[in-house]
Amino acid sequence: MTEFVLDPRLAADTLFVADWELSRVLLMDDGRFPWLILVPRRAGLVELSDLDLDAQMRLLREIDRAMALLRSLAPCDKLNIGALGNIVRQFHVHVVARRESDAAWPGPVWGSGAAVRYEVLARDFLLDRLRAAP
Amino acid sequence: MTEFVLDPRLAADTLFVADWELSRVLLMDDGRFPWLILVPRRAGLVELSDLDLDAQMRLLREIDRAMALLRSLAPCDKLNIGALGNIVRQFHVHVVARRESDAAWPGPVWGSGAAVRYEVLARDFLLDRLRAAP
Repeated sequence: MTEFVLDPRLAADTLFVADWELSRVLLMDDGRFPWLILVPRRAGLVELSDLDLDAQMRLLREIDRAMALLRSLAPCDKLNIGALGNIVRQFHVHVVARRESDAAWPGPVWGSGAAVRYEVLARDFLLDRLRAAP
Repeated sequence: MTEFVLDPRLAADTLFVADWELSRVLLMDDGRFPWLILVPRRAGLVELSDLDLDAQMRLLREIDRAMALLRSLAPCDKLNIGALGNIVRQFHVHVVARRESDAAWPGPVWGSGAAVRYEVLARDFLLDRLRAAP
């Protein structure tokens, strides 16, 4: 059995929020976009199809939960979901709340320029709210 | 009851492949990337969470099927899945086979420049293969 270890690049770009039943939940450290990343805590996953059917369904529920969580934080015009993995191979799912006024609209957030890291106070406030949510 | 009507922009950019149980399956008319789009045939959907749980699970199965179909066509280095909808609001899911040598690698295909439409013969050959697949 190989243990789950978070990819170091994902770890460097994000802040830990919580471990849900299947996924590690991370906040992308980029104040331009409210942006969560779900990483199923199983070793060796690259594609969605590497997860068994039960885990895929669990992931779907956790994506729904992440969407509701982002919606509860602030108004948004559209949610974007993506599983790319062209740079970081470890399977992960992005869930991003988009505004028509945001820095990348209507383009995708991926490849949309350099992240703007959260200020410490804003970051801690946001993490508290994310962790307190049901 | 409002009937499902495919968004005219999606219709203009794609070729019809088939109607699966839930989704209309479209081939993006862009020879740079093997790229399918699934559009659940229900009126008024914008977000994944607008689908009931059963339909979400069905969609997951159809995403898996689209991934397998793309893999059966040609070798690929990574599959990309995305539900954005910033431009076309009608809920749709992109499933794209990526190569490390493709025109947008490692960036996303969305917003990666103008589509290069298929030549007629290549297009018809590809559509035949997609429709013949299980």
